[in-house]
Amino acid sequence: MNIRSHTFEGFAERVRVFHGFAAPGVMIGGFMLDLAYQHLPREGLFDALCETSKCLPDAIQLLTPCTAGNGWLKVVHTGRYALALYEKSTGVGIRVHVDPAKLDAWPEIKGWFFKLKPKKEQNYELFMEQIKEAGGGICGVQTVRVADRFPGHKQRPAGLTVCPQCREAYPVADGRLCLACQGDVLYA
Amino acid sequence: MNIRSHTFEGFAERVRVFHGFAAPGVMIGGFMLDLAYQHLPREGLFDALCETSKCLPDAIQLLTPCTAGNGWLKVVHTGRYALALYEKSTGVGIRVHVDPAKLDAWPEIKGWFFKLKPKKEQNYELFMEQIKEAGGGICGVQTVRVADRFPGHKQRPAGLTVCPQCREAYPVADGRLCLACQGDVLYA
Repeated sequence: MNIRSHTFEGFAERVRVFHGFAAPGVMIGGFMLDLAYQHLPREGLFDALCETSKCLPDAIQLLTPCTAGNGWLKVVHTGRYALALYEKSTGVGIRVHVDPAKLDAWPEIKGWFFKLKPKKEQNYELFMEQIKEAGGGICGVQTVRVADRFPGHKQRPAGLTVCPQCREAYPVADGRLCLACQGDVLYA
Repeated sequence: MNIRSHTFEGFAERVRVFHGFAAPGVMIGGFMLDLAYQHLPREGLFDALCETSKCLPDAIQLLTPCTAGNGWLKVVHTGRYALALYEKSTGVGIRVHVDPAKLDAWPEIKGWFFKLKPKKEQNYELFMEQIKEAGGGICGVQTVRVADRFPGHKQRPAGLTVCPQCREAYPVADGRLCLACQGDVLYA
């Protein structure tokens, strides 16, 4: 059961280097992307939409050209373990999600996914074996059209100016002060 | 002028592979991180806060253990070209931002940063040379304490359940339906 051009173990090693450890969520994410690509046209550049900030963005960053910083990966929290790869111009693409109804056959995955067991009671080896065996089989696949104006997609007037309060540059579109000086408290 | 353990050219190559091309913003981000680390204790693991989703997250992902998916990198849009590395337990750390007042000495950087010139009028070679020469010299450095509850930081009740509408799993804390079924329109 491969993950794109990688063996399961090869991908696990790449995940370790980038993510810090071979997190189950990223491994499952690998199979989700593999599944998405099976349903996408061979050619084409696809943008990515990720519905959770947990683990899944790293699978996307490892297996697609989309990164958090290059604009092709958008993370929009719906809390669902789901991603979509889509053609930018049309918004049409493939969405893959973990389907809870398919987890009953995989008790270790289900226990982890729904946080039914404390971490120390999980059998990590068995768990990873189930992930490897299950592959994309725990997922659902849909054809979707990404909405023109989903939260991370908004087109805004371009241009930067200097905030009269903090003296840093910020997008004009944010208003007369930068968002931090408007009250978004980041620093105490 | 090195960027952590990399030469400028070596880092540019890593940026090309990960980000798609040696984007000026990521290169400047490299110097920003180098500067942050110069002011941080040698030992220690630091979380990252990034105030823009443009380019800078990728510099962080290339030069720190923090990624979009492992929870150590939080992107909170204030629109400012700034990042902070901080100790998780105390929130204390170093913030680095591009200081507009220091850009006058570097017209190519200033022109790009404030989008004063259309892309095709930019002299890319001269521009990259200025980035390399300027290094962290265009930045400001502050000691900060990251607020306990900045937007990406919120502690929420744990636990997942199945959304009665879409039948996918989502965090209980989001309400009786998942956020997508509550109306966040991602797909047309």
